[in-house]
Amino acid sequence: MARNTQVVADHNAPPVTRILAEFVANHPSRGWGDAVDHEAHRTFLNWLGCAVGASHHESVAAALAAVQMLQPAPQATVLGRAERVDMASAALVNGISSHTFDFDDTHLKTIIHPAGPVASALLALAEVTGASGRALIDALVLGIDVSCRVGNAMYPEHYDRGWHITGSTGTLGAAAACARLMGLDVERTQMALGIAASQPVGLREQFGSMTKPLHPGAAARAGLMSALMARHGYTASPRALEAPRGLMQVVSTKHDWREITDELGQRFEISFNAYKPFACGIVVHPGIDACAQLRARGVKPEDVERIELKVHSLVLELCGKKEPADGLQAKFSIYHGCAAGLMFGRAGEGEYADAVVTSEPMVALRRKVVATVDDAIREEQVDVTAVLRDGRREHVFIEHAIGSLQRPMSDADLEAKFHGQADEVLGEERVRALIEACWGVGAAPDLRTVVDRGRA
Amino acid sequence: MARNTQVVADHNAPPVTRILAEFVANHPSRGWGDAVDHEAHRTFLNWLGCAVGASHHESVAAALAAVQMLQPAPQATVLGRAERVDMASAALVNGISSHTFDFDDTHLKTIIHPAGPVASALLALAEVTGASGRALIDALVLGIDVSCRVGNAMYPEHYDRGWHITGSTGTLGAAAACARLMGLDVERTQMALGIAASQPVGLREQFGSMTKPLHPGAAARAGLMSALMARHGYTASPRALEAPRGLMQVVSTKHDWREITDELGQRFEISFNAYKPFACGIVVHPGIDACAQLRARGVKPEDVERIELKVHSLVLELCGKKEPADGLQAKFSIYHGCAAGLMFGRAGEGEYADAVVTSEPMVALRRKVVATVDDAIREEQVDVTAVLRDGRREHVFIEHAIGSLQRPMSDADLEAKFHGQADEVLGEERVRALIEACWGVGAAPDLRTVVDRGRA
Repeated sequence: MARNTQVVADHNAPPVTRILAEFVANHPSRGWGDAVDHEAHRTFLNWLGCAVGASHHESVAAALAAVQMLQPAPQATVLGRAERVDMASAALVNGISSHTFDFDDTHLKTIIHPAGPVASALLALAEVTGASGRALIDALVLGIDVSCRVGNAMYPEHYDRGWHITGSTGTLGAAAACARLMGLDVERTQMALGIAASQPVGLREQFGSMTKPLHPGAAARAGLMSALMARHGYTASPRALEAPRGLMQVVSTKHDWREITDELGQRFEISFNAYKPFACGIVVHPGIDACAQLRARGVKPEDVERIELKVHSLVLELCGKKEPADGLQAKFSIYHGCAAGLMFGRAGEGEYADAVVTSEPMVALRRKVVATVDDAIREEQVDVTAVLRDGRREHVFIEHAIGSLQRPMSDADLEAKFHGQADEVLGEERVRALIEACWGVGAAPDLRTVVDRGRA
Repeated sequence: MARNTQVVADHNAPPVTRILAEFVANHPSRGWGDAVDHEAHRTFLNWLGCAVGASHHESVAAALAAVQMLQPAPQATVLGRAERVDMASAALVNGISSHTFDFDDTHLKTIIHPAGPVASALLALAEVTGASGRALIDALVLGIDVSCRVGNAMYPEHYDRGWHITGSTGTLGAAAACARLMGLDVERTQMALGIAASQPVGLREQFGSMTKPLHPGAAARAGLMSALMARHGYTASPRALEAPRGLMQVVSTKHDWREITDELGQRFEISFNAYKPFACGIVVHPGIDACAQLRARGVKPEDVERIELKVHSLVLELCGKKEPADGLQAKFSIYHGCAAGLMFGRAGEGEYADAVVTSEPMVALRRKVVATVDDAIREEQVDVTAVLRDGRREHVFIEHAIGSLQRPMSDADLEAKFHGQADEVLGEERVRALIEACWGVGAAPDLRTVVDRGRA
């Protein structure tokens, strides 16, 4: 990993902090097509299901125990649980739970998980302020646009150098969204973005530890607080994003300002949001999909001699763990992912349980997977050949995995995924009502129905 | 400003996260000489005076108003004020106030202001947990050692590229200090450092806005929460500081690991901490000092024809404002600084009040100051000649200004500075008692006396 960066400060950057503030403060409610509005509902629903699904994970329990030491006021809901905490802490904890299983949404152009920071901040704030569902959906679209456009401008250099782009841009998205939800004017929205700009969160070194899901949680919290501070007159540099010593030039050598300004208010980045069918890193998905397809064709684990994968180099770089010791490590293992696809035809959180990961048949099957990097294979592709004991070879080539923009999960798929995560926590009937409330958010007078059904 | 950085990841970094965790968790109480222990008391006292002094500034009011929206539990003291808030919010607000007037301590090797993040987190935590004063002083020395050693390892590149090093290293110092105060073991201390590593705060673009003092405040808050989370089992990468995608390699191209490990536990960075006698940028201090010495010799403003300064080029580059329009601008004016030195013999926050800056006698005196760059003059020097109406010339050469490591402020100077800031807020008698409590912290059973006397 060598990085050769000749960096010269750009003193002529356009005023993107101001431009984004004007956009966030002034863009009309529902100023986009029905497809964008529906995508916002899908994003909200998928995020909420993930947060409920992981709400009793030890990472959530640990974070909540720390928060309890502050004796928080019972202002806002912790999804999937009975505790109520102050809204900033709710943003933190729901942000953590929504990313704990790495099962949340992905803006594929930047691999940002945009809902975690933005929706976690918004739901907590909306619950306290009594904001309408329409206002929340508006703010969600706009906040995600801010995170992802800033991400587009810096990706891939910013990510390559080690920033977890979900957290580092998420603070900005959460601040923008909360500013919008509170109806801050352009100047205060600009200050909210400026305050947030000094608080980027997240390093890739944390992948595989609880601090990875902390990134969207801490970003949600910091963004919400930035907006609250700006509301009360706290100031920041009006050029906090674009100045030579502002966020974007400090944390990235790439800053393509047009990614922020081009088609602003016409193209919405939430349109490029995708939802994971599998509870692991996105680069593993084509492999799981391929192996699930082999299973559907009748290939059985016990018949397999070897599974040969040709993959993009990023797959082994990010998810090359050969012998994962537990569920968390298995999420970074193309070997486990493929084995789960072949064994179960799916790879939800259940297939990443420690007991499954360490079970003898899974360990054995995993060891039959051989992955080699092939320069002809793109990131979203995989070429899989199952070599069977009887000498037969079954071949699958995946151009785009299920869950990609080209093969998106249907609304019914998303509901099934939601049930798969949340039923165990809240019960099937309650979950059905919660899903209904999510689809109806844009028309709801407030978020009460969602949070009432979303807490334990 | 061009930065030419050829960056190759260092895969052989020593395990400094672990090394620092062992040091913080295991170093014996008061495991240093009396001079270090006394310096810790000086650092604590100076920090507290600054926090009380700025406690009614509009930045503090705005931050506190945002915090109040969380309906915080009245756990901990906001210095100089009557409000009580949860301990994490107290860390935030006290961190902001302590840096608002830019009058706090400076670790001169890195220009880190180390007390803001570390002491703000510690006092709030100690008030809630009932920790002893000894434990607080121990944790202060160790936490500041962590911030400043990480800073030494990255300075100057990290600062040059735009990070406000006070906030970016302060989160680590605060986390380490709070871990120590709670008695966390090595493993949990290592996790606290790891969690904190994902939350660096602060960009230099914010200088001149309220977000500059937010940096130590947000670092204090994040560090405290990192320690609380680690205490409850939250995990992070054990190599969060040194790994190729860990904090130090991501935010700096310079990482001299020996700055962290050399003489660890023998040399303490708090020994290199200095305290500002004047409420402005450090390059102006020699000029103010010189003019205050002229005043002490009996030179009166009305006798002066002209004041001739020979200065280093940086003085005019950073602080060359000839006609400052208000107090904030005057902080960047060598002309105002010298005039204040001659007129008042001091340059505290009072001598930077808008009314003083714009008063007729000050404007007139300022215009008599003539500064020229002289290549023979070093940054910390100044050569001043007062040309009097009667033709006499009074000359002063400053080798090191008061407040430097070579001419440190005496304990009495620090007390006078404290009174100069805090008397207006708490009254002289209370301040005297508070100062006494600060000197006695190391022997106090808890922090009750300090916080009782430090709140309004």
